[in-house]
Amino acid sequence: MTDTYLNTQSSLSMKGSGYYSAKTAGAKNAIDKTQKVIENALQTIPSNEILKFADFGSADGGTSQEMWSNIIKIIRDKGDNRQIEILYTDLASNDFSTLFKTMQGMHGNANFAFQKNFKNIYVHGCGTGFHEQLMSDDSLTLGFSATAMHYVSERPCLIENHVHMTGANESEKKLFTKQANKDWETILLNRSKELIKGGRFICINFGIDEQGRCLGNTGGHIMFNNFSKNWKYLEDQGIISNQEYINATFTQHYRTVEEFRAPFDNKDSAISKSGLILKSCETMITECPYKIHYLNNKNTMSPQDYARTLIPTMRSWSETVFRNALVDRTEREINEIVDKFYNLYIDEVSNDPEGHAMDYVHVIMDIEKAY
Amino acid sequence: MTDTYLNTQSSLSMKGSGYYSAKTAGAKNAIDKTQKVIENALQTIPSNEILKFADFGSADGGTSQEMWSNIIKIIRDKGDNRQIEILYTDLASNDFSTLFKTMQGMHGNANFAFQKNFKNIYVHGCGTGFHEQLMSDDSLTLGFSATAMHYVSERPCLIENHVHMTGANESEKKLFTKQANKDWETILLNRSKELIKGGRFICINFGIDEQGRCLGNTGGHIMFNNFSKNWKYLEDQGIISNQEYINATFTQHYRTVEEFRAPFDNKDSAISKSGLILKSCETMITECPYKIHYLNNKNTMSPQDYARTLIPTMRSWSETVFRNALVDRTEREINEIVDKFYNLYIDEVSNDPEGHAMDYVHVIMDIEKAY
Repeated sequence: MTDTYLNTQSSLSMKGSGYYSAKTAGAKNAIDKTQKVIENALQTIPSNEILKFADFGSADGGTSQEMWSNIIKIIRDKGDNRQIEILYTDLASNDFSTLFKTMQGMHGNANFAFQKNFKNIYVHGCGTGFHEQLMSDDSLTLGFSATAMHYVSERPCLIENHVHMTGANESEKKLFTKQANKDWETILLNRSKELIKGGRFICINFGIDEQGRCLGNTGGHIMFNNFSKNWKYLEDQGIISNQEYINATFTQHYRTVEEFRAPFDNKDSAISKSGLILKSCETMITECPYKIHYLNNKNTMSPQDYARTLIPTMRSWSETVFRNALVDRTEREINEIVDKFYNLYIDEVSNDPEGHAMDYVHVIMDIEKAY
Repeated sequence: MTDTYLNTQSSLSMKGSGYYSAKTAGAKNAIDKTQKVIENALQTIPSNEILKFADFGSADGGTSQEMWSNIIKIIRDKGDNRQIEILYTDLASNDFSTLFKTMQGMHGNANFAFQKNFKNIYVHGCGTGFHEQLMSDDSLTLGFSATAMHYVSERPCLIENHVHMTGANESEKKLFTKQANKDWETILLNRSKELIKGGRFICINFGIDEQGRCLGNTGGHIMFNNFSKNWKYLEDQGIISNQEYINATFTQHYRTVEEFRAPFDNKDSAISKSGLILKSCETMITECPYKIHYLNNKNTMSPQDYARTLIPTMRSWSETVFRNALVDRTEREINEIVDKFYNLYIDEVSNDPEGHAMDYVHVIMDIEKAY
């Protein structure tokens, strides 16, 4: 953790290649905790001639690299030298060059550059969204996806008095739920086609746990409410328009455990009929690594120091929503407004850090293509 | 041809996305002419459950897009709806985002966006050089490669009195030949592993034909000699150092037909033993599209107009060699020197265009994994 944190620190000012991974130490920790589920699954997957893995919504591959490297090491240490194809998928605009370089040891942590460190590993990429089928029928041994499927394939409406569906009104929430249910079915049906019989799809997704907790909302301040409050403040100050306030709507849905389970619990659903069964479904909290580091280093870190590590990690994945909400603005105006927006959050945390954090709330599912 | 040319024209000033393809209309024409060879091969390849294609050294996929689209259309028009996976390979630094967008119809000519226009097509990328094995054993139905394998995996030496192996002295040429032979064996052995039994590898490579002709050397001025002459002129003028002159050495080898054939003609070679046989080997000249356009439009085009279309196409693939030859220079100096270098060529062609062109000389090989 310390190493990860230090890496994150040293690259805080570095945008561009590797930026996403460095900013998302927590996402990495959540993945690392899932390794056991994958190890267990691999013990029961039928033995095919080749192993075909996929990492859906992988971004630059940085957050899951260590996990995949560990899994491959376990396979090889057992004397299993089968050829392994691993397909990384994300949108076409994804930084596949950094991804390929990372696995070859030309970027990032060479200790986990598994393409270089092990034999017979073939790393491929796919620039098509995971709402579609991405490879041939009956070819995938084990699919994995981390922190990616909360993005819905289209935004069903703008949210009028908030920025995120967790704060939407009932009718807005209904539209998001409908879209998310439809997407979840599409995602699963396509994975069902791709998987070999006995293959597994293990995913950890942002969601809402049994206690109603979700990302940045685990007891203290609620991150998305803060985004909303500060964005509204910019409207109140006349810095952005009401339409720009409304435009900032995350194209995301945090599914509840029930929503995730629904197609499996219904034996007549298209998902169940396609052969998929749910082996396990659990929720998991991964504490904000920035918060932990701050609490362990209060003697040397000021609240402002903490704010200046916490807010950038939030900014890394949320910034585009606020940038794109702005209408007919110059690049310079956009930069100024968005800087101002995140600085409000930094100021608030600097004044009183208590209860501010970005804890992760994941729903871990182990899905089998049983028949 | 005219359409292609116009597309090329309109984007002459556009660098970045699609730049490579727009500048390489001739490379595209050469590929289009190879389509028949691929069509013929597909008629005899054994019928597998899925079709797996690969395009080795594809760059952004633009030059071969129409050809692949035509091939897929022919397959589908026959009522063959098998799933098709196509793997595009190039170095990790390649622009895979433009490639993926192109096949999905988000970039370039949507008429040939085959992933969008046909069903059950899965487009994947691989950022590892083709000197290595890039996918599982016994999985590739048909591999293709155009104008890519003249790059040797490492530069065996710098060339002292020229910029390209076609102008190197005997001892230098020997080193390049040795490297190229070794690379060719490695390339073929890896394709042999990847191919299914009965699968085909069809490649069109820059090379030297039976009459000693090669790229930009088909009877008139010799392009690489001109590069060399102008680069030497900059040295003579004190603009670059002698070391910088020498540093400009293309990491390329133009193989002769004999060199391409050698491992097949020897039945005891590792290639032959691996099961590869050569079905056909031909040379092909593709006339410079800029030259043709100029000859057809002499009434409206000046020699200078011609020079200003011809030299950029040369510059698109050669510029990095000259940039990287410069030592301890600022970006601004590098730009100035390289602009000056290509302007010398523009001036020469503007003064007398006769005999200046970049005709393509390819060796087309149809290789079968026979056993």
